[in-house]
Amino acid sequence: MTSTQSLVCVGLDPEIEKFPAHIRQRPQAILEFNCAIIDATADLACAYKPQIAHYAAVGAEEQLLETIRYIRQRAPGIQVILDSKRGDIGSTAEKYAREAFERYGADAVTINPYLGRDSAEPFLEYADKGVVVLCRTSNSGARELQDLDVGGRKLYQLVAEKVSKEWNSRGNCLLVVGATYPDELADIRRITGDMTFLVPGIGAQGGDIEKAVRNGRRADGRGLVINSSRGILYASQGEDFATAARRATLELRDAVNAARR
Amino acid sequence: MTSTQSLVCVGLDPEIEKFPAHIRQRPQAILEFNCAIIDATADLACAYKPQIAHYAAVGAEEQLLETIRYIRQRAPGIQVILDSKRGDIGSTAEKYAREAFERYGADAVTINPYLGRDSAEPFLEYADKGVVVLCRTSNSGARELQDLDVGGRKLYQLVAEKVSKEWNSRGNCLLVVGATYPDELADIRRITGDMTFLVPGIGAQGGDIEKAVRNGRRADGRGLVINSSRGILYASQGEDFATAARRATLELRDAVNAARR
Repeated sequence: MTSTQSLVCVGLDPEIEKFPAHIRQRPQAILEFNCAIIDATADLACAYKPQIAHYAAVGAEEQLLETIRYIRQRAPGIQVILDSKRGDIGSTAEKYAREAFERYGADAVTINPYLGRDSAEPFLEYADKGVVVLCRTSNSGARELQDLDVGGRKLYQLVAEKVSKEWNSRGNCLLVVGATYPDELADIRRITGDMTFLVPGIGAQGGDIEKAVRNGRRADGRGLVINSSRGILYASQGEDFATAARRATLELRDAVNAARR
Repeated sequence: MTSTQSLVCVGLDPEIEKFPAHIRQRPQAILEFNCAIIDATADLACAYKPQIAHYAAVGAEEQLLETIRYIRQRAPGIQVILDSKRGDIGSTAEKYAREAFERYGADAVTINPYLGRDSAEPFLEYADKGVVVLCRTSNSGARELQDLDVGGRKLYQLVAEKVSKEWNSRGNCLLVVGATYPDELADIRRITGDMTFLVPGIGAQGGDIEKAVRNGRRADGRGLVINSSRGILYASQGEDFATAARRATLELRDAVNAARR
């Protein structure tokens, strides 16, 4: 983050049908598209976040691997967050951790808390990796379970507290908190102190940048990784897609930086 | 199920380090192992459940695809449940549904309820496919969130009720309920009426077959898919692994059938 002075994370969620026509037909369309986006944004981002479903749906695991290799070579200081929202019993969670940290070599992975701490433990044991736990997600259905009253507070508040006070014994936990819920962002900041949040929901999902940053930032103006995927990747679907992606990233970076000061 | 008179699901969770030595070194070791297990159990099972982390950790997506093709050819009446416990916002959930139902052609997939109904909807829209929602999982950490009191009942009870009464409008929902918690099985049976449960936790995880079946069965003695993975796959780690797997499946089938009558 320091080198680029940016809190912006570029979500790498390739959807071939949204690619510019000249790339869509290429055999390695996803990799080519991602590399162009990375070239256009490497000096403006603090992280890249490939969402793995977009690769798994079309059998593009090799292109995901190649994309991550390209990030390492092109932008070695930038973090790679594998967004896979995994969650399973311990013996299986070990395999998922191996997928994220060994197969893909990600710096961090997103996980789901529903199965409890023992399901997170195999990820947490990679002490130098980030484990980003879903807390209050950006979708409208988030309310259904995450806002349930569990003895005077909401489930997401309890998750925030458990993760920050118990699961975080190695100091490698982060939380997912959607930009679409700025009040909850402020609330989770109060509960968790200095913890870093991964904040999706900007752009296509309609989250307000200024409110999200103001409510979610730490006292030092940091502690946030603000993700945009579709708003950057598909800013233009023409041949100028990379230039448009750069412009969108720059605007987001500047808007975030203005709001965090 | 009818053709084999069995409620047993064989979990296909390949761990190469547990394979017999003569298979471990083969280039398609996972596929060879799975095919031998399928040959040995096809007349004794109602379903196969590949747990996808075991393939993803070692980049064996092609062998998973080939395994499923082999099941279709060898045992066309048997269901394939892709155990991936996915959960993400709607636009991403669409990709995960595509992964499960189109790429792998599974008959059913496991999902996580933490993000709410809108995250399940893209799966539920495949009306002829099964959507197996995590309710009360088999691990000890399940208690941490799933047993929280949410206004006079537990979170897992609320999930059971929501899924059976609301999410199940197309009649294609199932629930995951661990055999390691027989009281909760009885409880969820009371809440959900006729819904089918996928029941892990037998064998390596220590669940009691008789209790689980008695407490979880419907009045007609069905409504359960009882999974065993390690207890079958690694019943022997010698050259007789397939024979041992058959014997373990047969014993489990008979124990389940005895308990459900």
